[in-house]
Amino acid sequence: MEVVVLYSGGKDSSLAAHVLESMGYDVNLLTANFGVLDSWKHAREAAEAIGLPHEVKRFDIRVMKKACEMIVKDGFPKNGINFLHRYVVGEVAKEHNILADGTRRDDRVPWLDLKEIRSIEDRHGVEYIAPLRGIGSRTIKKLTENLFKIEKVESGELQNSDYESEIRETLKRKHVLLNMFPHHVQSRVKWRS
Amino acid sequence: MEVVVLYSGGKDSSLAAHVLESMGYDVNLLTANFGVLDSWKHAREAAEAIGLPHEVKRFDIRVMKKACEMIVKDGFPKNGINFLHRYVVGEVAKEHNILADGTRRDDRVPWLDLKEIRSIEDRHGVEYIAPLRGIGSRTIKKLTENLFKIEKVESGELQNSDYESEIRETLKRKHVLLNMFPHHVQSRVKWRS
Repeated sequence: MEVVVLYSGGKDSSLAAHVLESMGYDVNLLTANFGVLDSWKHAREAAEAIGLPHEVKRFDIRVMKKACEMIVKDGFPKNGINFLHRYVVGEVAKEHNILADGTRRDDRVPWLDLKEIRSIEDRHGVEYIAPLRGIGSRTIKKLTENLFKIEKVESGELQNSDYESEIRETLKRKHVLLNMFPHHVQSRVKWRS
Repeated sequence: MEVVVLYSGGKDSSLAAHVLESMGYDVNLLTANFGVLDSWKHAREAAEAIGLPHEVKRFDIRVMKKACEMIVKDGFPKNGINFLHRYVVGEVAKEHNILADGTRRDDRVPWLDLKEIRSIEDRHGVEYIAPLRGIGSRTIKKLTENLFKIEKVESGELQNSDYESEIRETLKRKHVLLNMFPHHVQSRVKWRS
């Protein structure tokens, strides 16, 4: 059984991949890229560190631009990021039968609610697995510290392979102020035990 | 790291235990029993089949009776079963630091919502893990068929080690008709690959 995990190179999607492997899946990692930055490279490095096959899938930059317009209009990034995530999931669902992501119980963005997940499963005839949905952030922190060697980076300081790096860059080019993004610590997986 | 999994001997709680093991936890299984039936024996057999330590914890029969009164008053079992589940979780949380159950994304009963889970975590200073919360029933069916040898039993036909067997027996002794329980197929794990 093959599963494709939407992969940022961070601790959450790496843990999701690890859990799926232990369930018996052949795990393939996939990083979305919109051609704004080569930020996918961090996910590639992490994929090599955890020893799983990794694909970068290029998506239409117009979708990124539309997401950024939403973010500017809203004044906060949530809806724009979810719009991107839904688009990416829908596109990946056209080509794969079993999809997964690393969204956690306590996450806010990106977030597909149960209705949306079931609708994706029905519309595309796929299975969508979110193996960290029942696990709190404190538990995930401990688990990933046990399983991986992790480098922590302040979001915005360095590029990462999630949607945010390309969104920030797109907005910066439009001279939009980036203070609407809450500071949070991002992680990059360097090694798996 | 030790985790206690609320265990019925069925495929869901067995899969939850398997996933937690692969995350690096030392897994202990716990089956609740209210002294109405020795239905915990099925969970003991399944625990032996999957090779994990198993404890039967006896709870106050008055709580079972109260749950059954709720069920009779409501005319449906949902609230009574959730009442029992919350009670059991609260009691187990007094003695253990990391708890888990096998509730799935598409389950209805027993069900703790996110608020309740966070409240249990905060009140008791524990971590509560529900490793199947992001996984649909179709996916779980395939996974458990791969991992385990499963015996299927129609609910009500045979005893099982979840709350329902003891609830049914308590109600039967009070001459309450049991047609309020929807028929569903229950599973018993016989072997792990």
